[in-house]
Amino acid sequence: MNTAIIGASGYAGEETVRLLSRHPRLRLTAVTSRQNKGKTLGSVVGGLTRYRDLQFEDLSPAEVASRAELFVLAVPHGVAAEYAVPLREAGKLVVDLSADFRIHDPAVYAEFYGHPHAAPAYLPQAVYALPELHAEAIKKSDLLASPGCYPTSILLALAPALQAGWLDLETIAITSLSGVTGAGKKAEIPLLFGEIGESLRAYSLPKHRHLSEIEQEIALLAGKPVQVSFVPHLVPINRGILTTITARLMDRNLAPAAAQAAYEAFYRDKPFVRVLDQATLPEVKNVARTNFAEIALRIDPRTGRLILISAIDNLVKGTAGQAIQAINLRLGYPEEEGLL
Amino acid sequence: MNTAIIGASGYAGEETVRLLSRHPRLRLTAVTSRQNKGKTLGSVVGGLTRYRDLQFEDLSPAEVASRAELFVLAVPHGVAAEYAVPLREAGKLVVDLSADFRIHDPAVYAEFYGHPHAAPAYLPQAVYALPELHAEAIKKSDLLASPGCYPTSILLALAPALQAGWLDLETIAITSLSGVTGAGKKAEIPLLFGEIGESLRAYSLPKHRHLSEIEQEIALLAGKPVQVSFVPHLVPINRGILTTITARLMDRNLAPAAAQAAYEAFYRDKPFVRVLDQATLPEVKNVARTNFAEIALRIDPRTGRLILISAIDNLVKGTAGQAIQAINLRLGYPEEEGLL
Amino acid sequence: MNTAIIGASGYAGEETVRLLSRHPRLRLTAVTSRQNKGKTLGSVVGGLTRYRDLQFEDLSPAEVASRAELFVLAVPHGVAAEYAVPLREAGKLVVDLSADFRIHDPAVYAEFYGHPHAAPAYLPQAVYALPELHAEAIKKSDLLASPGCYPTSILLALAPALQAGWLDLETIAITSLSGVTGAGKKAEIPLLFGEIGESLRAYSLPKHRHLSEIEQEIALLAGKPVQVSFVPHLVPINRGILTTITARLMDRNLAPAAAQAAYEAFYRDKPFVRVLDQATLPEVKNVARTNFAEIALRIDPRTGRLILISAIDNLVKGTAGQAIQAINLRLGYPEEEGLL
Amino acid sequence: MNTAIIGASGYAGEETVRLLSRHPRLRLTAVTSRQNKGKTLGSVVGGLTRYRDLQFEDLSPAEVASRAELFVLAVPHGVAAEYAVPLREAGKLVVDLSADFRIHDPAVYAEFYGHPHAAPAYLPQAVYALPELHAEAIKKSDLLASPGCYPTSILLALAPALQAGWLDLETIAITSLSGVTGAGKKAEIPLLFGEIGESLRAYSLPKHRHLSEIEQEIALLAGKPVQVSFVPHLVPINRGILTTITARLMDRNLAPAAAQAAYEAFYRDKPFVRVLDQATLPEVKNVARTNFAEIALRIDPRTGRLILISAIDNLVKGTAGQAIQAINLRLGYPEEEGLL
Repeated sequence: MNTAIIGASGYAGEETVRLLSRHPRLRLTAVTSRQNKGKTLGSVVGGLTRYRDLQFEDLSPAEVASRAELFVLAVPHGVAAEYAVPLREAGKLVVDLSADFRIHDPAVYAEFYGHPHAAPAYLPQAVYALPELHAEAIKKSDLLASPGCYPTSILLALAPALQAGWLDLETIAITSLSGVTGAGKKAEIPLLFGEIGESLRAYSLPKHRHLSEIEQEIALLAGKPVQVSFVPHLVPINRGILTTITARLMDRNLAPAAAQAAYEAFYRDKPFVRVLDQATLPEVKNVARTNFAEIALRIDPRTGRLILISAIDNLVKGTAGQAIQAINLRLGYPEEEGLL
Repeated sequence: MNTAIIGASGYAGEETVRLLSRHPRLRLTAVTSRQNKGKTLGSVVGGLTRYRDLQFEDLSPAEVASRAELFVLAVPHGVAAEYAVPLREAGKLVVDLSADFRIHDPAVYAEFYGHPHAAPAYLPQAVYALPELHAEAIKKSDLLASPGCYPTSILLALAPALQAGWLDLETIAITSLSGVTGAGKKAEIPLLFGEIGESLRAYSLPKHRHLSEIEQEIALLAGKPVQVSFVPHLVPINRGILTTITARLMDRNLAPAAAQAAYEAFYRDKPFVRVLDQATLPEVKNVARTNFAEIALRIDPRTGRLILISAIDNLVKGTAGQAIQAINLRLGYPEEEGLL
Repeated sequence: MNTAIIGASGYAGEETVRLLSRHPRLRLTAVTSRQNKGKTLGSVVGGLTRYRDLQFEDLSPAEVASRAELFVLAVPHGVAAEYAVPLREAGKLVVDLSADFRIHDPAVYAEFYGHPHAAPAYLPQAVYALPELHAEAIKKSDLLASPGCYPTSILLALAPALQAGWLDLETIAITSLSGVTGAGKKAEIPLLFGEIGESLRAYSLPKHRHLSEIEQEIALLAGKPVQVSFVPHLVPINRGILTTITARLMDRNLAPAAAQAAYEAFYRDKPFVRVLDQATLPEVKNVARTNFAEIALRIDPRTGRLILISAIDNLVKGTAGQAIQAINLRLGYPEEEGLL
Repeated sequence: MNTAIIGASGYAGEETVRLLSRHPRLRLTAVTSRQNKGKTLGSVVGGLTRYRDLQFEDLSPAEVASRAELFVLAVPHGVAAEYAVPLREAGKLVVDLSADFRIHDPAVYAEFYGHPHAAPAYLPQAVYALPELHAEAIKKSDLLASPGCYPTSILLALAPALQAGWLDLETIAITSLSGVTGAGKKAEIPLLFGEIGESLRAYSLPKHRHLSEIEQEIALLAGKPVQVSFVPHLVPINRGILTTITARLMDRNLAPAAAQAAYEAFYRDKPFVRVLDQATLPEVKNVARTNFAEIALRIDPRTGRLILISAIDNLVKGTAGQAIQAINLRLGYPEEEGLL
């Protein structure tokens, strides 16, 4: 299927290009970028072996519509809606890597993103495209809102416990550590190597935008509204997210073996989630540059808390790989096609 | 004052050497090391400008006692007690960087360290030498138990809030990120650059040994026993700890300005703690290789939680610098002597 | 074809496992390791998706011979010969990642490795398995000596210039920067993150062992013996080598366009070498975790020198990937099978 | 002495602020910055303990002249001359960290910097302020041109060998590896952590601007014009330069002990240069954040070449510390004042 990437020169777009270059059923036919117009993909995206000579173009939504059947939007929120609407009108399959169609309630979008939603009429047809939670809906939608990287690492870790009703929902405390590509390919002083190397910092406290989708999905899993504490950190690695979550157990006598078995059962048929055993903890290096997530759980008998740890690659399972996984589901391809 | 370092070739010992080489009132007269016996300090501790020709010796407690008046023990717990007892018997001033004399209750020591305490009779004379909390006791003790690096970063962040009684003590959730020197200079595969670089991981779940001293001191501040959740992480930097703590406020209407003012008041006369304003967050690079701690607090109105962030250098404020600071207090020197 | 890896728990062995897990025609049937005997591959090699349950065994050469037709030796030099001889006697195809069969002259081996060669009678059947230089010989040999990582980065950069006779052979000065996995997965203090992070150093001066194979191959290309200057460095990255070579041109009026064209022609049919244009320089990030090499050349009109820069991944093109590439050639598979 | 820093918010300016905050005889009275006008030093320069409340101002040369007696120019070349001329006219002592007054010959400046020199009339009073080579001239000049970081690491390594006449001058090949702060605090994509981490690259080939001052000083030491090969690299560390130089010896029988002794004699009275012995090689971690340089030499009997390795901190000995060292000499203070 002919595929175009809108905004292919940021980290998310580049990674989508890399993954598409290995996908046997998707053919990249157009890449757009204002700043790189006229350059070849190979001169901008390092290490490509295919599509090196494809040229960046600067195309309007109307112009690009004829170039493909499937469109991956790798542009900032706000801009994504400007492409999604005409492309959906033209009957195209749209996968949006931005936040524009992740939030079902436009009021929540406005609260967290600071401006009214540009196309609220399109929200009902959008699906929050986390394949491990919403596979059936993904198969039927033409507007796939690919989740954020932090939410992916958090929701995969929490889902089984939430669905099982184990947690005191008022006590969920989340900490995430993110590699620097998660902040985007922006020419900003705080993202320089000289500012990040040998340093650590938290940021966006106390209300990171991703809380909007995190809490939306937690509420769906828990069956009622929940507000959680979330502290994101920037750490000196290129890629990867490690998330640590603690929450008090409703039943502090929950047996570790039972909890472990429940997690393994929840993810039994999910090809990209590895539930680690009680002797092993996730490490970013074991998921880096793959579409896999690693999850481990521990019960702390002293505090009666469940401890959840997850690791993903922020640009693959957190962004571009997850989008391909959803596309595979939507198009009826094997879920792992092009991702192993 | 003549000073000896027992075990001067690990990271903690090396950093003590570096700091002593700049201290105008302490003179390094002996350094011991089994493995480096006969080598010069300069050939083992990079970048020294003073004491380069001092030789490592392999001395028993009895032999070393005559070499100095002040002894810094930079050996593993268990071994430290073997030196501390005879040195105290000889009337020497002992500063122990290990955990051996930090825990007042030998039963707690045995629970967390897995063996009975070697010298419980000496615990009553030991002081938990965190200068910001126990300056008066430090001035009167000859057995100073210098705090661990994680506990320092945690207790400095929590102390004002605990003392003010702001926190729901059941809800304290702590996450710490540590540079790799915190794990010691040990020839172990998991500490290789090839295993740590571009990776992240949590470890020692759910019951890290430092919880023993963390909870001892929290209980003293809070006035009752408390159990907290603590998740330590290893991150690819050489030096530094960033700690993030969240806890529910008893009064969720606590005003940020009042909380800020209380923290500033608590640390007004503490030369090594910087309480940052409401627009700034701690960064490891701002405290690295210094004895300073940076602390910031935020109130999350959505969850009614207090968020505390602190940054220290694990080998200076977290180990060797803090020991010098306590020595300065004990000997009546200016608290900042040799540390600026 | 059934394949066994001897010594599969070092970095070279691990990377061979990873590559074999994606190769459609090679089936991994045995992995040996003394220290990991009884453990599963998945518990030792992070991020595997296939062969996770294969167990490490501790097998003698005689025992392992029946387990496969193809053997990859990922053990230290000296040990490799102990396996290669009986396996060759048993008629097996052997690919050795160590230095044991790279040097044609046993006297040179003894000079550089400090002990007599263990099996000089087998040297005549061994091929220095650098596919870009020796493809035809590789196709006919059953004892493939896979090149070292430094030599690969150096020889690929030098070969066209040497073959064309451009260089004053007395003036070749080589500098290489290597990621830390190049030093192996050894529990040694100098390889700790705390010793490598935020530091740089040269080592093995002036006579690194790899000079033996570098100079052997340079002599073959140049048609006469040559001695070169080689300074290897350790830099804080996990993977990758960047090599810089300068040498005086015999004809300082050699035109950049002619030199560029000659390099492009030399590598026209070599799928894993990318000759970059005169506006682009190699970067490790563009070859990391791939079997590709990037090469650029510049002529310095001021000094009349040719400057060559190359980048490879030390564990893929420098070790395991190159071995797979040679196996593909030997077995008549497409050269790129399993490597894209 | 009252001191002002022009352009105090780049990495060079920040480091000058840090060093001045520890200097007992220099008082910082003004800091200028266009972009940070009105902000306090403490809010921009992390980790300061003194001068935190000093405000950045945006002052013209005429305005700033009255604010101090000593001026450190930490602005780009070209801009530096705009300040230096009026400040010198006002009789001030000027230390320029840019390249504007390093090159004695304005034609060479124009060739390497691409525009005519702005104030050639001031070149005769300027001194190339490398204290180990030009201490006497520094003591008498009011216009100190502080050397570049690469040239410092290269000239310190080469000077004794050049002065002794050991080298075949046509064969000098220099490679340098620099930490990322050497590229300045500029909001540019290629300097992002995401572009630098886990990568390596050479740049500015074949004619880096610093060659102008490197060759000027080599010519002075060698007694005749020399052109050298120089390949700079960017590596993922914050701070530090490691330089490797090889050159053919005129007498290939030069004894290592004699060469070693000559280097030690050359630097005997130079407090900031450590000549390492024949068993030790420089490491960036041993000089990082200090004003020291480490130098080692080896003779390669196979190629008849001298190998020189040096390590410095690019922002201290390579920039701000060296400037303070020169100021100390100029003002008759102890050379090490404020630098230990």
